[in-house]
Amino acid sequence: MNQKGILIVVSGFAGTGKGTIMKELLRRYSGQYALSISMTTRSPRPGEQDGVEYFFTDRETFEHEIAVGGLIEHACYCDHYYGTPRAYVDSQLLMGKDVILEIEVQGALQIKEKFPDTVLLFVVPPSVQILYDRLKGRGTESGEVIAARMKRAGEECAYIPHYDYILVNDDLDVCVEQMHHIIQSQKLAAARNATFIESIYSDLQSLSF
Amino acid sequence: MNQKGILIVVSGFAGTGKGTIMKELLRRYSGQYALSISMTTRSPRPGEQDGVEYFFTDRETFEHEIAVGGLIEHACYCDHYYGTPRAYVDSQLLMGKDVILEIEVQGALQIKEKFPDTVLLFVVPPSVQILYDRLKGRGTESGEVIAARMKRAGEECAYIPHYDYILVNDDLDVCVEQMHHIIQSQKLAAARNATFIESIYSDLQSLSF
Repeated sequence: MNQKGILIVVSGFAGTGKGTIMKELLRRYSGQYALSISMTTRSPRPGEQDGVEYFFTDRETFEHEIAVGGLIEHACYCDHYYGTPRAYVDSQLLMGKDVILEIEVQGALQIKEKFPDTVLLFVVPPSVQILYDRLKGRGTESGEVIAARMKRAGEECAYIPHYDYILVNDDLDVCVEQMHHIIQSQKLAAARNATFIESIYSDLQSLSF
Repeated sequence: MNQKGILIVVSGFAGTGKGTIMKELLRRYSGQYALSISMTTRSPRPGEQDGVEYFFTDRETFEHEIAVGGLIEHACYCDHYYGTPRAYVDSQLLMGKDVILEIEVQGALQIKEKFPDTVLLFVVPPSVQILYDRLKGRGTESGEVIAARMKRAGEECAYIPHYDYILVNDDLDVCVEQMHHIIQSQKLAAARNATFIESIYSDLQSLSF
């Protein structure tokens, strides 16, 4: 069977708990998954560390990386670049790890176009009301910020049909196990095991009785 | 989320242990799965019971079932009809059960063509040598019968790329859990949850702040 890792993109509305799900997935199955770290030209926020939340870099270095094909996707938001370094992803996949990218919808579709084998997962809340209540319950965001996030969710929603799977984050434990099983089941897809099937076929053809 | 059951076809070379896998799957998750029972015009073998291994019937009744669309697939082997009754499959799917059909490669492709949502699983041995040793180890079949089965496996192998997933039956416990997770993960496919996605979309669009 194919031992190479697979590439997974996780997206989802703000407030659906993507970060918590992935943290728990990596805690439970630490040997199996690698979380890709994005590169950005924005400044670190208080508490953020280089190589943990992001690789922080300058514009010149980032543009050099684009030029030499060092990023598998990149985008520019609010005058700052964000991108996914290729070297880390490639090395982890070769080592058999499944690499998870947490990126937004446009980046996700870029990745799927370049690497059609990528599995796209979208995390949704059990209902829109629950999403609204969660955002409000945090008590850290103004009504305006919450309204903007809900509006953004409405825009992102149009992209969900391009994703392969949806995960409803109702119960964290269930959701983490579902994510794990979706990814591990994908490894058994016939399309990912053409070489193994070919070897069985050729062994059967070469038999003589 | 979609609560309707899904249709699964399981095929595989003789001697790979399909029957044992499914028996164990149904034992562990008895509330979740239903095994479809085929209808046939061949006579029961010693020990076979009507409604257990097959529904045994006569040619006239079988042909009537074909004529009224009562079978979702059928084929004729060695002058006997074999087919899958539609009513049982439909009623179990509506009740939310996942219905498993154990059928051979041509029937599997017929089903996939009529019901593109069907998940096709193919069970393979870890290696051709192991398959040969298993068949020989049974000690119940002549060298000629074993040779015929290996030849048939060689023919069936050409169909595997049409299947969605392959399962390597190396360890029964692993294999049963993999089958379960493949099937349950499929329920989270975005394509199977268009109505749920549409409801989230419409709730988000109708929000006003």
